[in-house]
Amino acid sequence: MKRKKFLLEETQMPTAWYNMVADMPHRPQPYLDPKAHTPITEQTLSVMIAEELARQELSTERFIEIPEEVQAMYRIWRPVPLVRATGLERALDTPAHIYFKNEGVSPVGSHKPNSAVPQAYYNFKQGVKRLTTETGAGQWGSALAFAGRHFGLDVDVYMVRCSYDQKPYRRLMMNTWGAQCYASPTMRTASGRAARAENPAAMGSLGLAISEAVEAALASPETTRYCLGSVMNHVLLHQTITGEEAILQMEMADEMPDVVIGCVGGGSNFGGIAFPFLRKKFCEGAQLRVVAVEPESCPKLTRGTFGYDIGDVSGYTPLIPMYSLGHDFQPSAIHAGGLRYHGAGAIISQLLHDGLIEATAVPQTETMQAGVLFARTEGIIPAPESTHAIAVAIREALRAKAEGCARTILFNLSGHGTIDLYAYEQHLAGHLADYVPTDEELAVTAGQVLR
Amino acid sequence: MKRKKFLLEETQMPTAWYNMVADMPHRPQPYLDPKAHTPITEQTLSVMIAEELARQELSTERFIEIPEEVQAMYRIWRPVPLVRATGLERALDTPAHIYFKNEGVSPVGSHKPNSAVPQAYYNFKQGVKRLTTETGAGQWGSALAFAGRHFGLDVDVYMVRCSYDQKPYRRLMMNTWGAQCYASPTMRTASGRAARAENPAAMGSLGLAISEAVEAALASPETTRYCLGSVMNHVLLHQTITGEEAILQMEMADEMPDVVIGCVGGGSNFGGIAFPFLRKKFCEGAQLRVVAVEPESCPKLTRGTFGYDIGDVSGYTPLIPMYSLGHDFQPSAIHAGGLRYHGAGAIISQLLHDGLIEATAVPQTETMQAGVLFARTEGIIPAPESTHAIAVAIREALRAKAEGCARTILFNLSGHGTIDLYAYEQHLAGHLADYVPTDEELAVTAGQVLR
Repeated sequence: MKRKKFLLEETQMPTAWYNMVADMPHRPQPYLDPKAHTPITEQTLSVMIAEELARQELSTERFIEIPEEVQAMYRIWRPVPLVRATGLERALDTPAHIYFKNEGVSPVGSHKPNSAVPQAYYNFKQGVKRLTTETGAGQWGSALAFAGRHFGLDVDVYMVRCSYDQKPYRRLMMNTWGAQCYASPTMRTASGRAARAENPAAMGSLGLAISEAVEAALASPETTRYCLGSVMNHVLLHQTITGEEAILQMEMADEMPDVVIGCVGGGSNFGGIAFPFLRKKFCEGAQLRVVAVEPESCPKLTRGTFGYDIGDVSGYTPLIPMYSLGHDFQPSAIHAGGLRYHGAGAIISQLLHDGLIEATAVPQTETMQAGVLFARTEGIIPAPESTHAIAVAIREALRAKAEGCARTILFNLSGHGTIDLYAYEQHLAGHLADYVPTDEELAVTAGQVLR
Repeated sequence: MKRKKFLLEETQMPTAWYNMVADMPHRPQPYLDPKAHTPITEQTLSVMIAEELARQELSTERFIEIPEEVQAMYRIWRPVPLVRATGLERALDTPAHIYFKNEGVSPVGSHKPNSAVPQAYYNFKQGVKRLTTETGAGQWGSALAFAGRHFGLDVDVYMVRCSYDQKPYRRLMMNTWGAQCYASPTMRTASGRAARAENPAAMGSLGLAISEAVEAALASPETTRYCLGSVMNHVLLHQTITGEEAILQMEMADEMPDVVIGCVGGGSNFGGIAFPFLRKKFCEGAQLRVVAVEPESCPKLTRGTFGYDIGDVSGYTPLIPMYSLGHDFQPSAIHAGGLRYHGAGAIISQLLHDGLIEATAVPQTETMQAGVLFARTEGIIPAPESTHAIAVAIREALRAKAEGCARTILFNLSGHGTIDLYAYEQHLAGHLADYVPTDEELAVTAGQVLR
């Protein structure tokens, strides 16, 4: 019998998150105050986010203990399976071994609760009563709704209007868990009102939704804090539970990956699987490559500028040292809504800048073909974001076949796609196109990045 | 640390299904030919369904081996977790221990592939090229699409039009796995054309969709067979993998249930969890109660007639000895689409008739309240069907609290509800009502049941 899944018992679940910063040859430059351009401190950050999260954001400790309350909630769905993609291997007729970590088994359907749970917990411990956040495709907003409810917190989600209209199921999930969900731009904040004044039919953007959520939190500092679902160091820290589990499970399979693959929006699921394996590489001499995958239509890693940029349109967030397309960059309306963000987290950007990880951009049609093949061979319909990682895993497996060599491939299946089925309908009907921005288009917003 | 989940390794997965018939004090009366009223044989059944499935339908063997090819496909998602509902217990402040089997982790989101996989496999082995089936809410059609694709079979699904229009995501899932999905009544069959001639805007029914699917299969006997997702003995047989796993997992938890609960449409998820525990009761003297839960609006178990009825409107299926409301009974449009069926499987009906299991009917609003409480305490949004089991688990837990006694409760979480979120929206908006048919209404179709 060929083993399909590698499961950990709850008692084997890692009890600490891994902080990539501790082992980086060059640590990222500091975040800067968006106005004064001076390095920000825990104290200034903690006006916006919970104190413990601000501390983690700037921490250089190698491991940070996962509180027992967070572990208890993780156990609702974690540890998650490592799966050998035997059906996909057979379909590709490849000598490669393909493994994936199935983060789609969480109640929300993605990796997002890995950070939503600790963020809700630390806010609860601090006495915060209400959380605000933004959401694009809806995965993060759902995750914070789920986690916030558990700790008795009110949650206000600002959801980009075009997604709010397109994906009613995501809003209904948030409502079912008891959160409020608003179509951004709203009339609740100055940022939203300004956008509506400019264009009453504005469909919103992630950058604007972040501005609204931060503004709403800052307006009620005694009760409310803001939460972010990606990009920042503490978010990627929490996601490393994925890679820490995967290391134990690859050991059960008696293999080590030659290549580790994840898709990148802000970088949270990618960092989650990649960072623990990069520790193996940096500290234990493991021979492996790490590949970050982005859509060709939003190519911050392969065609962006490495410098300082803000994370939202109104400039409430710090200046972050990152690969960015400029904070006003408007990507085309691809179905992988979670990958439509102008910048990548500071740690990932620094690793890429230093040549320690690779980045590659893939066209939408290739990713959806990969998603359909995966659905038909492995049974699981993947999220459009996750199909980017699958597409590159397939490329690697076919290259191994062409070269006639063995290769062990590991990718992060960041979520399932059963709430994103219109993407598959469009693809199966032949309606999806590829879009590659021209150099001229990228130049329009590139100047916003401070080199 | 209180353990949350009880997991089995793949090597611990049971390798045989359990056939309840072997241990019943009174076996069900035989199926009858709908015209001649003579007992049907394997041979007549195998015109409609695969030979091995016809054999299993009439088998009295206690255990039937699960073929290795089926086990291999089960391993995509099985064994599935047994979960201790610690969050729900806390919210109810009950001394009871509540466990549930989470069948929602399958790629389809429910227990349905437990039978879709072997049905597709046996048809494939026999050389069948195409499967036809009906689906109501869409869970079964999705499951057969998923399973059929794996064995290279074409799958045609006749989906009740009102669900086809209301639940586009279910159709898109089937398409993604490569199946065809038609809104029933169609113009492809005589049954469908007759219904459309009578009412061009007919919204269809499960009984009619079954007639269409059977008719389409019978029209191409050299290539095509019909598959059914519930009611029949072989379907419930395949579902017993759930209860067999649960027995091993309850042993891991060092407990035995005092009460086992499942919701009943045709009876497949209920039989799946209940039958192996009934073996414990009948053969090993285990002290436990088994409760079948149905919606008050479709009360076949609590208010139906025990006798012979057909499973579809056109009379293609055998006469089945069962509790039925009459095959023309039209239940109100509750959200638990999977429970809107006029009859219950022969084994379950006989067990109930003999007083060996209990049945109870619950109102829709109570079930949705239970679903919301479960979502907010256990994180998982349950399918509207599964909320019926949760509602009765809650009743049992509160009774234990009132009586001040311990009680171990086990229910089957037959599926997640993330594709059924409109039910939650309607409930949260206060738009759902309860509906109890009057005796007069039930009398209209009750006469169709032959006593």
